Amino acid sequence: MARVNENFLKLKAGYLFPEIARRVRVFSEEEPEKAKKLIRCGIGDVTEPLPLAARTAMKEAIDELGERASFRGYGPEQGYEFLRKAIAEHAYNGLGVDPEEVFVSDGSKCDSGNILDIFGAGLKIAITDPVYPVYVDTNVMAGNTGEADEDGRFEGLIYLPCTVENDFTPALPDEPVDLIYLCYPNNPTGTVATKDQLQRWVDYAREHDAVILYDAAYEAYVQDSELPRSIYEIEGARECAIEFRSFSKNGGFTGTRCAYIVIPKGLTGSTGSGERVPLHGLWARRHSTKFNGVSYLVQRGAEALFTVEGKTQVRKLVEHYMGNAALLREACEMAGLAVHGGQHSPYVWVQCPQGVDSWGMFDQMLEEAQVVITPGAGFGAAGEGYFRISAFNSRQNVEEVCQRIGTVFGS
Amino acid sequence: MARVNENFLKLKAGYLFPEIARRVRVFSEEEPEKAKKLIRCGIGDVTEPLPLAARTAMKEAIDELGERASFRGYGPEQGYEFLRKAIAEHAYNGLGVDPEEVFVSDGSKCDSGNILDIFGAGLKIAITDPVYPVYVDTNVMAGNTGEADEDGRFEGLIYLPCTVENDFTPALPDEPVDLIYLCYPNNPTGTVATKDQLQRWVDYAREHDAVILYDAAYEAYVQDSELPRSIYEIEGARECAIEFRSFSKNGGFTGTRCAYIVIPKGLTGSTGSGERVPLHGLWARRHSTKFNGVSYLVQRGAEALFTVEGKTQVRKLVEHYMGNAALLREACEMAGLAVHGGQHSPYVWVQCPQGVDSWGMFDQMLEEAQVVITPGAGFGAAGEGYFRISAFNSRQNVEEVCQRIGTVFGS
Repeated sequence: MARVNENFLKLKAGYLFPEIARRVRVFSEEEPEKAKKLIRCGIGDVTEPLPLAARTAMKEAIDELGERASFRGYGPEQGYEFLRKAIAEHAYNGLGVDPEEVFVSDGSKCDSGNILDIFGAGLKIAITDPVYPVYVDTNVMAGNTGEADEDGRFEGLIYLPCTVENDFTPALPDEPVDLIYLCYPNNPTGTVATKDQLQRWVDYAREHDAVILYDAAYEAYVQDSELPRSIYEIEGARECAIEFRSFSKNGGFTGTRCAYIVIPKGLTGSTGSGERVPLHGLWARRHSTKFNGVSYLVQRGAEALFTVEGKTQVRKLVEHYMGNAALLREACEMAGLAVHGGQHSPYVWVQCPQGVDSWGMFDQMLEEAQVVITPGAGFGAAGEGYFRISAFNSRQNVEEVCQRIGTVFGS
Repeated sequence: MARVNENFLKLKAGYLFPEIARRVRVFSEEEPEKAKKLIRCGIGDVTEPLPLAARTAMKEAIDELGERASFRGYGPEQGYEFLRKAIAEHAYNGLGVDPEEVFVSDGSKCDSGNILDIFGAGLKIAITDPVYPVYVDTNVMAGNTGEADEDGRFEGLIYLPCTVENDFTPALPDEPVDLIYLCYPNNPTGTVATKDQLQRWVDYAREHDAVILYDAAYEAYVQDSELPRSIYEIEGARECAIEFRSFSKNGGFTGTRCAYIVIPKGLTGSTGSGERVPLHGLWARRHSTKFNGVSYLVQRGAEALFTVEGKTQVRKLVEHYMGNAALLREACEMAGLAVHGGQHSPYVWVQCPQGVDSWGMFDQMLEEAQVVITPGAGFGAAGEGYFRISAFNSRQNVEEVCQRIGTVFGS
């Protein structure tokens, strides 16, 4: 009898974004005229054209594949050396990352889910709350949790609330944990961590033999050189942290697909009998057995983002979205709303007005302003009372959204 | 303490192809002059240029990504409707596959490893022997086996030998099993199953409430319309089988990356308490949580393989490789070797001469002929005494390999 993985049945029916899509669809059917004015600031998806450098490189790669002499079949599962070198040199300039420590993949979502393959069962896992839902759901699927309570919190996970009361800075866990998910600039709150704050986490992890899974997908949005873009700027991080990065939000690759993780060679986990095992080797085995490398042409496109032209084009994209974020922050402040994030992040995290919950705010913004936002509760119980506005949009749309915010809140 | 997944430690150090690469590297260092003549017929990787239809479509897609109006960010995780429809219509013409039953992915290797996510622990799993190593290794990683014995057979797996004695046709298992891996045309033996043979498997699976994982990555190589290309040609298969397919070996996409699986909506597994759960919904949840869709441009390239020009170009590629296979078969027969496969498959499966084992044969072919083959033992204990020659090569190289086979065996 083919038994199913019953852990899947613990998950709620609606992953956040499908539920948003469902409500938008219902609204569009009921109010087709209003729906024509819809502007989507919900899902964090880029909108501006793919950088020319990447497009040119990908076309050249296609031409290579059209000639027998330059045709490429299977590439190395961990990524072509040209891309791993470019990442080590440009993305980690001066941080001592070896190209062999870089594993290229087709997405940070995949990486952050798949990484659990190399860890054992029964680990104590800490996540911030609110949080990117994939961290939670993949742990549920892997059997690392019990059932959810009525707030949607799963038994067995250690939730670290991040709210206005603690300035969105999670406290160290009360009990020892083995795996810690951190994401900075944060999705969804748009906040950043200082070097001192990250140093506390690295010290904690080393003291407790824990591993930090550090999601730096939004590092390109950090505007202040005093703020860390990589966990490896922190002393001791190479002994306790894996970093996740992506070309999605800097190079506009959400539909083109390329990401990577860094696993320092000296980073180890433990067997039950106390033997130390390098995580690099485990992931290399996992990656080469269950993955077959990223499309050659996509890797050439990603490589091109590190050229002089590519870097300029990426910088312009980031500036565009950050200009949007500034406008959205201003509009919300003018409307009398308490605003967080959006200064080193493409996400603006806004407190709902007194007495309105986050799905209520979602419905109100949809019906009164035809603007799709993301309700904070979708990111976890501690996200209740907040909503996220994504700055990924055209300038024209963002200006229109700002006006509509003014109308809804009478500012 | 971050405990590792100790199941990984049960795996032998060398996955087959890395071990081949290592021996080739050592030979190249020791015999640099001879190494200049190396011809690789080991790994099953295509060599001929990517079809023009796919290249043209991908370039057009890149241009679309260069304009805001036609830019695409995140696509549907399960694949764009245009591709799912094309697959249902062209790859499954008349077989009743709904586009919604198709899940597009970046590779069959990924799919065949990841599919285990939706099944429970403790299943009885049957695999043919010899077999594509990924089926075994991913089960080891998932904790579905004990340790390996000295022949490399893992405790807990049910091995079904396929040798010349049973005409490479595996017997039904002696004990009830829950999951069955089948691959036709077979990798590595190059043999095919008849409809009657597959009907026996489908009947077995339905009787025992088992699920068949049917790998049809090489279906394009079937030359006889009486032989099944899809498990869904078999009555009852929609109630018990998941099919894996890929654009790698027909469209030359090994470096471009696109594949898909079909999960019929009526196919269910069971919970411990006997409740039936559709596998389609579980995989949809898995796919949308741990995967973010295939690159848009690659999906456009794959779609183009189903156009009139695309189909013609794919047919020419398949004819080219099948012409190679016929030459290789002939050369081996002339050399007095017993030859199997290669008639509906790009793989020729050859018996080693009396008294030579398969790694011995590998070393001899490398040293005397500078031809890289794959030793049968690398695919499992029952592969001992055989070797695989891949027909994926240029015609010129294959003709040269045929001559060298003649020289080595004095024919």
